[in-house]
Amino acid sequence: MLKVGDTSFFSKTISESDVYLFAGITGDFNPLHINAIEAENSIFGSRIVHGMLTGSFISTVLGTKFPGPGTIYLEQDLKFKKPVFIGDTVTANVIVSEVINFEKGIYKLDTVITNSKDEIVTEGYAIVKYCD
Amino acid sequence: MLKVGDTSFFSKTISESDVYLFAGITGDFNPLHINAIEAENSIFGSRIVHGMLTGSFISTVLGTKFPGPGTIYLEQDLKFKKPVFIGDTVTANVIVSEVINFEKGIYKLDTVITNSKDEIVTEGYAIVKYCD
Amino acid sequence: MLKVGDTSFFSKTISESDVYLFAGITGDFNPLHINAIEAENSIFGSRIVHGMLTGSFISTVLGTKFPGPGTIYLEQDLKFKKPVFIGDTVTANVIVSEVINFEKGIYKLDTVITNSKDEIVTEGYAIVKYCD
Amino acid sequence: MLKVGDTSFFSKTISESDVYLFAGITGDFNPLHINAIEAENSIFGSRIVHGMLTGSFISTVLGTKFPGPGTIYLEQDLKFKKPVFIGDTVTANVIVSEVINFEKGIYKLDTVITNSKDEIVTEGYAIVKYCD
Repeated sequence: MLKVGDTSFFSKTISESDVYLFAGITGDFNPLHINAIEAENSIFGSRIVHGMLTGSFISTVLGTKFPGPGTIYLEQDLKFKKPVFIGDTVTANVIVSEVINFEKGIYKLDTVITNSKDEIVTEGYAIVKYCD
Repeated sequence: MLKVGDTSFFSKTISESDVYLFAGITGDFNPLHINAIEAENSIFGSRIVHGMLTGSFISTVLGTKFPGPGTIYLEQDLKFKKPVFIGDTVTANVIVSEVINFEKGIYKLDTVITNSKDEIVTEGYAIVKYCD
Repeated sequence: MLKVGDTSFFSKTISESDVYLFAGITGDFNPLHINAIEAENSIFGSRIVHGMLTGSFISTVLGTKFPGPGTIYLEQDLKFKKPVFIGDTVTANVIVSEVINFEKGIYKLDTVITNSKDEIVTEGYAIVKYCD
Repeated sequence: MLKVGDTSFFSKTISESDVYLFAGITGDFNPLHINAIEAENSIFGSRIVHGMLTGSFISTVLGTKFPGPGTIYLEQDLKFKKPVFIGDTVTANVIVSEVINFEKGIYKLDTVITNSKDEIVTEGYAIVKYCD
């Protein structure tokens, strides 16, 4: 049973190999992610991490730590606020914000990802079903 | 300049190695994804693909095909409707549904992912900025 | 503070991609692991998993679950008792068997890895330093 | 037929991608390996290589060079003496130290891994069965 305010997180330094493997799995070879020269000439100034890769660390928290195995992922909303660069250490935070349906175990969680300067790079929410 | 109704897609058969590498990058080792025995005993009956991996194929369309390089990804909403299994072939479809701000190039796109039986596995929307 | 009898585990179905990536990282291209034809003609009958890969799941338990982050790994002994095949689901179990030095936080743990038939594939022990 | 004193080795510079892939295969996402900031604040000062990854280079020697294909790996003992950092070049050395059972082809080998400053990072022994 989850309570409003319950929270957990996962942190990782995102390596170039993470970005390259993610591109290889998804096919998202946008030059901003895998072409250093084009990325340097872009508004970002260097290669950035796929937003969906950073966002996936929320799934890591939900599926392995809190609520953990057994969680059914119903929805994820992600607002991409700032770029994440190769080498950045990001932290995906989840916090229960609403009990949508206690009997069915449906919860809303705020999902906020920060970089090592404590800037919010991604924010949004998840809806999960979890019956313990 | 994008118009309401413009559309594109990306398809891929998701292999076991895709799922295992995605687990490896994100740390999402939820047993439903990487433990065949636990998955067989779950409500799904076999190992399922991470929802965020399937969802990432939308990013592939947006960043590489349509609107393509130069697109700035502002938001992604994903509602996970049905499980995707290892070996399924999924198609991520995007279609411009609204011109939010023509001058700034802000658009809303409906994003729908189907499996090979034409069942919707994921639906939602993306907000992008694109100035051509 | 750990007590004799404290225990934890980690399970994974080992995929072909796990074995191939492990070969690629370590350079251990022994044909038994990556040549299906030679492996079929060997005493094992099909490609087997690197013993050190299976053994590494003990490190996964120690470093991420129990005792968890902060654990310093001092020694690992692994006796390879039975082959593990691609597709097998293995479980790495650790159990505290001895408090070697309470003040320095030095512990011995029995480490036993089983397959899905509950056969022991690897057994041995770990020595760790852990101060909580 | 192996003789006491017979020896071989394998060297590799361990890249960040090696460590990240190893974490991805094994699930060992201990922050010391994949979180640069936590690792900087630890007693090690930067991200370290998984001990079992470094130790696996012994398997590389045994399975591919000496004694080579056909070797059956019976036991590996590893004492982790010093940390290995991303970018370090390590050398795994094996040397036959004892003929345990000549007729059955059972041998003991000392296994020592050094870094590029010739410091011992890991030491221990292997037991193998090898009939040529």
